[in-house]
Amino acid sequence: MIYTMVMMMKHWLTTPIFDKLVAHHNKKPISFHVPGHKNGSFFAKKGASFFNEILKLDVTELTGLDDLHSPEGVILESEKLLAELYGAKRSFLLVNGSTVGNLAMIMAAIDEEDTVLVQRNCHKSILHALQLANANPVFLNPEYERQWGVAGGLSVEIVETALKKYPNAKALIVTYPNYYGIVFELERIIDLAHKHGIPVLVDEAHGAHFIAGGIFPDSAVSLGADVVVQSAHKTLPAMTMGSFLHFNSELVCLKQIEAYLHIFQSSSPSYPIMASLDLARSYIASFDEQDIDYLFKQISGFKDNLSKIPGIHVLAYPNGRGDLLKITIQAKGLSGFELQKKLEERGVYAELADPNNLLFITPLLKKGMDYPFHQLTAHLSAIMKTELIGKAGGYKRKELCFQPPAISGLTFGFKEMKNLKRRKIPIEDAVGKIAAEMIVPYPPGIPLLFPGEIISHDHIEQLQALILTGAKFQGSNDILKGYIYIY
Amino acid sequence: MIYTMVMMMKHWLTTPIFDKLVAHHNKKPISFHVPGHKNGSFFAKKGASFFNEILKLDVTELTGLDDLHSPEGVILESEKLLAELYGAKRSFLLVNGSTVGNLAMIMAAIDEEDTVLVQRNCHKSILHALQLANANPVFLNPEYERQWGVAGGLSVEIVETALKKYPNAKALIVTYPNYYGIVFELERIIDLAHKHGIPVLVDEAHGAHFIAGGIFPDSAVSLGADVVVQSAHKTLPAMTMGSFLHFNSELVCLKQIEAYLHIFQSSSPSYPIMASLDLARSYIASFDEQDIDYLFKQISGFKDNLSKIPGIHVLAYPNGRGDLLKITIQAKGLSGFELQKKLEERGVYAELADPNNLLFITPLLKKGMDYPFHQLTAHLSAIMKTELIGKAGGYKRKELCFQPPAISGLTFGFKEMKNLKRRKIPIEDAVGKIAAEMIVPYPPGIPLLFPGEIISHDHIEQLQALILTGAKFQGSNDILKGYIYIY
Repeated sequence: MIYTMVMMMKHWLTTPIFDKLVAHHNKKPISFHVPGHKNGSFFAKKGASFFNEILKLDVTELTGLDDLHSPEGVILESEKLLAELYGAKRSFLLVNGSTVGNLAMIMAAIDEEDTVLVQRNCHKSILHALQLANANPVFLNPEYERQWGVAGGLSVEIVETALKKYPNAKALIVTYPNYYGIVFELERIIDLAHKHGIPVLVDEAHGAHFIAGGIFPDSAVSLGADVVVQSAHKTLPAMTMGSFLHFNSELVCLKQIEAYLHIFQSSSPSYPIMASLDLARSYIASFDEQDIDYLFKQISGFKDNLSKIPGIHVLAYPNGRGDLLKITIQAKGLSGFELQKKLEERGVYAELADPNNLLFITPLLKKGMDYPFHQLTAHLSAIMKTELIGKAGGYKRKELCFQPPAISGLTFGFKEMKNLKRRKIPIEDAVGKIAAEMIVPYPPGIPLLFPGEIISHDHIEQLQALILTGAKFQGSNDILKGYIYIY
Repeated sequence: MIYTMVMMMKHWLTTPIFDKLVAHHNKKPISFHVPGHKNGSFFAKKGASFFNEILKLDVTELTGLDDLHSPEGVILESEKLLAELYGAKRSFLLVNGSTVGNLAMIMAAIDEEDTVLVQRNCHKSILHALQLANANPVFLNPEYERQWGVAGGLSVEIVETALKKYPNAKALIVTYPNYYGIVFELERIIDLAHKHGIPVLVDEAHGAHFIAGGIFPDSAVSLGADVVVQSAHKTLPAMTMGSFLHFNSELVCLKQIEAYLHIFQSSSPSYPIMASLDLARSYIASFDEQDIDYLFKQISGFKDNLSKIPGIHVLAYPNGRGDLLKITIQAKGLSGFELQKKLEERGVYAELADPNNLLFITPLLKKGMDYPFHQLTAHLSAIMKTELIGKAGGYKRKELCFQPPAISGLTFGFKEMKNLKRRKIPIEDAVGKIAAEMIVPYPPGIPLLFPGEIISHDHIEQLQALILTGAKFQGSNDILKGYIYIY
């Protein structure tokens, strides 16, 4: 194999925040400060065994521990190591997930009424940011991956068309990779946007580990993106809500990003989460060629074994390029939701089910590390044996494809919507009405309908299909009861 | 002692979220989902001993674990128990600190250009919310506590005057108690505002434990406030960033609060933080009269011992009423910062130093629990012995009082400010100019100057005094170098 690995530097393995917290703890400090548990001395007894060790590091902005909102000590040091590793001008540790990174990068890049080009299958936090900024989003339809039955990435062509149609757009916002690990020609898209003087903001929530090397797709930072947000917690060994933001732009104002991060993140940020980000950066920086080789072999072997199970189909990435850590399968006669349920009954938990697919995320194994892949293989074999014996029928793969216009805006702006009245009607009566809520099938949390969009017949069909196959909808119980809010 | 205790119910001691997480862990689940550490199987080795136990609970929205953004299982159950305990119609668990609670309650209560009455010594998150909402804040000057040299609470009179002057105000935002535990006549203020049909939003960050009973000031929820935000992590045994929001209003829209919490909080909220909130509610719900008696005796005895140290003055609350857990002292010949430093050299960490004072937060001890109060007493005695021997002089208590107008607005609205140019000038040249940054001495994170305010001679004097005595300023290194941003 040929790798394009980042030349790792030894000091990238250091963990200044974690070390400082441990040093503080080792002094056996007496706390007369927040938090109320006082380094773990006070805590509900039944939680003690799980919490006691981490609470020793759950402190506040004491002398020497720096301040996330105005870093000049160990936090700045850790952020500098992060920026060096990823090749960014400036990187930030985030403690409120990629949600806060998306809010801050978008709010910083655009003003009220600005036109913004947005990949349609984006995370809801991107829509929220556009709503807060009172922007005018123009949605770009992603490519449809027929075999998977899911939305993929953006084509170069649609970006080209959109840039011509909206030369005054203030930003292009893309999601790379998608939830299933599918990537697209981001480098060409970035080049195109930059030729028009438009910054590219990337929600790379699922790609924090791409920096490890050439068996992974290129990191959006290295492809020239202006701002990139990554959920460190999703694929690196960090605590949930720990994320990164990387800045590399001549077009977006760094001070504005800092200002919005300050606004949107707790003024008492969690040190355990920050320390876990410090350790996670060190973990990924320690990956060498042997680790990558080992990881590749482990996961390839696992995928081969899965493929051999009768009735199980392991999906291949379009154009053969995607995230090694993600594995998506389809099972003969079973919907993704049904298969998920059967596996959970056996103690195996997948990342995401949709009508057709079940998605697994594998860990970032280093050389010599083990994971019970064989248990998943064994359980799947057992399930498929039962399912296939004497059974025809069962779930049939559905084409849930609906084709929104390639490029489309909202019928009402966010500001106008504020003054409109909402009401609830049965879903089947909603065709042609204006949606007054974001409809987000969950997971993966990608909006199917945006407030301000006209509800089409296709929308209704897809909604009803999702309800039938057992999808959940974030923020809305009404949908499951057959109701939708309109203006 | 006579208590006005909440009648505690046994089921308030239950911990549905924590229990469910433990039950999930006990099934020895195999994770093929986020986070990347896979229930703690993968984590940087040197962090393992601190992180391994908590990572077993650091999971995601798996079947049965509910969804913070659309709760209908264990999270909703925990929120219902919380609401019952505090006497709220609806309560929310927050994972991004009181910052997100303040943002959500304010954004939900007001629209663009609305006039809002705001206690001047508020947390920066309140200003951030007003800025995001493009509101017109009218600042109400708090009472000045001469002995403490700090801003206290609001007087009934100033609220009365403001309500007459601004009958169209859309909300009154107060901070109760202040950072030092000082309270004020909130009940009368709430009654006044409600007579004018104006909702009262309370930043009760430091009062989550007031629900425990009569030796504590009354909780803002029980005094009739519309929305109350509490930092559970500050005084209860919860993890940092764990907070509560309580809703009890006929005047504010609950759906709007839910919508903004959804926008401002991570779509991958931390289960350890949520579980710690569950356990913290159980902890405070378990307080009985004997616990309260014990706690009172412990802290009173400690305060008596502190008072006996030559040169140490333990401050008494104005009108004798304030938070038992907070202890503020002044030391002869030492500034608060100097005393803080000397204690830190001895391994004792206080909550907050200001030029005159040092503030300690004591833990919520239950009957039979110990805390090394005697060590603080011993260290303080030793320090004061050295300080007082043969020394006259040293730090003299400073009156850092500056009297802004009782009721004042911004010279520029938030929207106008967006289009103005900022520049940096030496502090001493700034009198009469319009501030272009929020100046927040830190801790306690209370703004001294707001963007859009005219900089007065008093502002400059207080700034220079703070710099001299070693204060830090959040989000700004320029101030310490003698520079300030103006329009």
